[in-house]
Amino acid sequence: MSNNTFQMTMLFDFFGDLLTDKQREYFDLYHNEDLSLSEIAEMAGISRQGVYDIISRSEKLLEEFEAKTGVVQRWLETRQELEQAETLARKLQQLFCNNPQSTKLAQELVETLVKLSETK
Amino acid sequence: MSNNTFQMTMLFDFFGDLLTDKQREYFDLYHNEDLSLSEIAEMAGISRQGVYDIISRSEKLLEEFEAKTGVVQRWLETRQELEQAETLARKLQQLFCNNPQSTKLAQELVETLVKLSETK
Repeated sequence: MSNNTFQMTMLFDFFGDLLTDKQREYFDLYHNEDLSLSEIAEMAGISRQGVYDIISRSEKLLEEFEAKTGVVQRWLETRQELEQAETLARKLQQLFCNNPQSTKLAQELVETLVKLSETK
Repeated sequence: MSNNTFQMTMLFDFFGDLLTDKQREYFDLYHNEDLSLSEIAEMAGISRQGVYDIISRSEKLLEEFEAKTGVVQRWLETRQELEQAETLARKLQQLFCNNPQSTKLAQELVETLVKLSETK
């Protein structure tokens, strides 16, 4: 079972809908809602081992989707490059803060890049 | 069977590795290499109907991956916004072509955005 909740949450965010309803539900309770295996087992009326197996299987599937598509890794790299672009755009904005035309253009550019960094 | 080769190529590019070897091979020959069903059938030593079924199934799987993750749609939207950002950056570059510092910054920014638009 993975302790890397950040990575698991990213994988779930991208590929969660490729899991079955039950896999998605238990995965979400464990990794996003921070319930223990015993709590989920009690709630679902199945054994702790049963919950463990379903969540482990879900994690493996999500990791397999990522290994085969590289979608999350690519998105993380894109976001990093967008942040660099945003830094450059902010520098340009500061350089020409006394020119209304360039200030407007740079502002628009910064906003576009910020928006892109925030969407998945 | 889909006639939208552009869309199918995009889907294949993102999710192709989630298909089986055979699905991937026939899909690639048909959509990317532009072979006919009969040509693939002859090459593979199976019926034309058999090839048709495998490619149809592959298309459905790829469409299902996209319906559930929205990865390709999001990438197309991101690319469009990156192109807008690139246009803005090029305008800024032209505005201050006589200032070496801003020219360097704007150039770096344009290059970052172009690189991002080109990667998947």
